[in-house]
Amino acid sequence: METQKRLLVNGSRLKATLEKFAEFGRTDNQGVTRLSLSKEDIQARDYFCECCQELGMTIKVDDMGTIYATLPGVENKPPIVMGSHLDSVKKGGRFDGVLGVVAGLEVVRTIVESGIKPKVPLTIVNFTNEEGARFEPSMMASGVLSGKFVKEKMLQSSDVEGVTFKEALQASGYEGKVENRLKEASAFIELHIEQGPVLEREALSIGVVECVVGMVCYEVEVNGESNHAGTTPMPMRNDALTKATELMLNATDKLKLLDEDLVYTIGRLNVSPNIHTVIPNNVIFSLEARHKNPEVIKQVEQIIQELEQLSDANGCSVAVKKLWGRDTVHFDQSICEQLEQSAKSLGYSYKRMVSGAGHDAQFIQSLIPSAMIFVPSVKGKSHCEEELTSWEECEKGVNVLLDTVYALQAKA
Amino acid sequence: METQKRLLVNGSRLKATLEKFAEFGRTDNQGVTRLSLSKEDIQARDYFCECCQELGMTIKVDDMGTIYATLPGVENKPPIVMGSHLDSVKKGGRFDGVLGVVAGLEVVRTIVESGIKPKVPLTIVNFTNEEGARFEPSMMASGVLSGKFVKEKMLQSSDVEGVTFKEALQASGYEGKVENRLKEASAFIELHIEQGPVLEREALSIGVVECVVGMVCYEVEVNGESNHAGTTPMPMRNDALTKATELMLNATDKLKLLDEDLVYTIGRLNVSPNIHTVIPNNVIFSLEARHKNPEVIKQVEQIIQELEQLSDANGCSVAVKKLWGRDTVHFDQSICEQLEQSAKSLGYSYKRMVSGAGHDAQFIQSLIPSAMIFVPSVKGKSHCEEELTSWEECEKGVNVLLDTVYALQAKA
Repeated sequence: METQKRLLVNGSRLKATLEKFAEFGRTDNQGVTRLSLSKEDIQARDYFCECCQELGMTIKVDDMGTIYATLPGVENKPPIVMGSHLDSVKKGGRFDGVLGVVAGLEVVRTIVESGIKPKVPLTIVNFTNEEGARFEPSMMASGVLSGKFVKEKMLQSSDVEGVTFKEALQASGYEGKVENRLKEASAFIELHIEQGPVLEREALSIGVVECVVGMVCYEVEVNGESNHAGTTPMPMRNDALTKATELMLNATDKLKLLDEDLVYTIGRLNVSPNIHTVIPNNVIFSLEARHKNPEVIKQVEQIIQELEQLSDANGCSVAVKKLWGRDTVHFDQSICEQLEQSAKSLGYSYKRMVSGAGHDAQFIQSLIPSAMIFVPSVKGKSHCEEELTSWEECEKGVNVLLDTVYALQAKA
Repeated sequence: METQKRLLVNGSRLKATLEKFAEFGRTDNQGVTRLSLSKEDIQARDYFCECCQELGMTIKVDDMGTIYATLPGVENKPPIVMGSHLDSVKKGGRFDGVLGVVAGLEVVRTIVESGIKPKVPLTIVNFTNEEGARFEPSMMASGVLSGKFVKEKMLQSSDVEGVTFKEALQASGYEGKVENRLKEASAFIELHIEQGPVLEREALSIGVVECVVGMVCYEVEVNGESNHAGTTPMPMRNDALTKATELMLNATDKLKLLDEDLVYTIGRLNVSPNIHTVIPNNVIFSLEARHKNPEVIKQVEQIIQELEQLSDANGCSVAVKKLWGRDTVHFDQSICEQLEQSAKSLGYSYKRMVSGAGHDAQFIQSLIPSAMIFVPSVKGKSHCEEELTSWEECEKGVNVLLDTVYALQAKA
């Protein structure tokens, strides 16, 4: 134990703030529906700005609606940035995204309250439309900011009612200026729920996220022949579903031997004509896989591509198509080391880990040294109303963020 | 060769009549859409009645709209009945059903033309709504006639636009009387396309159908747990699709060993939530199987029911539900022998076979000694616009029908 009094966040204030944000778009079952630029999202944004202004922070909004609230530093140097996103999926949880924004708020509140003047500015960021639940794709604003997505194309993305992102952004009052975009900063740190079961199963409080793993997503299409299920003898069939089952097993039997950290999923599978008395003539399934090592991903791709060789000369044909892929994004090692040191000095159990899910930080890393903190998700659940992280674990995560930000500004 | 002049049907007249009926509901690609009691079906019915009246036949219609056209016999004995159905599925073919009705017409035309007076009346029947494509279930009118279906329930069956069978029947002008129902007859013979590839593959012209095979249809439901495809390590998953694949293989690996005549099909499979980035939490698939031997069907049912034992204690659960089943219907042996003899004496290649598909004759067999004649389906296709049987094969089938009817009336 250190003898000096340690700077810690206020757990009850953190809880109260999270509960306050959970009111914006609350669902019947403890969840939230706060689609990007919806009425509920605008309420959350307004409240966030209000809280920041009370702390003496200045608010800027960029041309994609991303909000930056900045507490001035003693020196006018590039800021340290914290944050995540306030939008949610439909019937999502009370923690995904909003935790990272509220964490930034709690860090600034603690620092302001303690009378400390940070050496450099501290910025809290709320990225627009991380979820992509209303307007595809996900991580839209951080994607534009980092040059991954073309802004003009994003503005035309429309929701199910035909409203474009551009129209929604203009109507929201949160269309800012391109010159307000985040340009330089010494660090970006995103606190987020894990959205997986690892920390909980291993009874750990903190995940120091070293990377967002690379992934590939393929689509496999099998074409056979539809015939009457009652009149076609087994040897005369070209059943696309029987063939698809063979392909799925062929691939997964090989994938399971590659590496224990590899994850792969057949999440979508559609059968045509999908009638119980008709032999299927077409099956399309997705197969996606994620791993941090590009060599492993290369082996995965080879296994999937080889499925095409299983086409039958006079029977079912197999076509394999790559839908998309992304490389592993490694976070900044010195921030990761500081996060680890903060967790250790606070006495929290932690591990270095990877993120299988995508986050704004993976795009921001190409501009600014970035890293992420994970806190445990009960049963690994997210994007659902049951999504839960205990208040204690939230508080620990924010304490690690505070400690790291404090250390980084001191070194800046 | 027989020295006596053989009675044979008129092939070009048969072809012209089939082509005429193909006009009622013709589609762009040589098919027909002639849903039961639709405008097109009524046109076909009207034309059928007209043709029969020209031959001096009397028309009766029963309370389910089934039409009976009867040529009087020398003796007022129970008739010999031929026929099938004039309705089709959506974008169906020009042969399924209508061939059996037109065959009856060609048989009567040939007999009338030859000046022969049959000893007993000859009846051509057109069963209402065999396909069940507009009003479920299929084989509706023959089902009511044979007491398999409850008439009042059938009348309430409605199409996609909410029109009930009762309303459509009344509007069609083909609502007849219950006393017109077929009561007794010495034989019912239905000529039909095979709807399977067996005759074509074996280069045979005629199938003498001994039975409609029994079948069972099950639904298997797997419940697992949805989680993020990127963040959930493989050992921590309860993937319902992985489990379903295991079940499908478990069942089919055993089914394929049972009997070479067994057919089994997984035609319908639905995955939830069916998103490529989410581990499936629910899969439901159908599994139906058909075989003439009830002992084989019993073994099939045991294999399917045993899938429930593959539930995982802490993982995916498996529930098996029997949707329905039907017993094998054996046709009348003496009619089958006559059909065989007729095919043989006409010099046509033939085989005894089973029907994997359902037909009106399977219901009528419980009232009247029945049997069926199959003619080859090109590539085994039916219920589609490509459905095809050559004119020559159609003609051969009708000659077998004529020869058998002639023999049966002589013996009556």
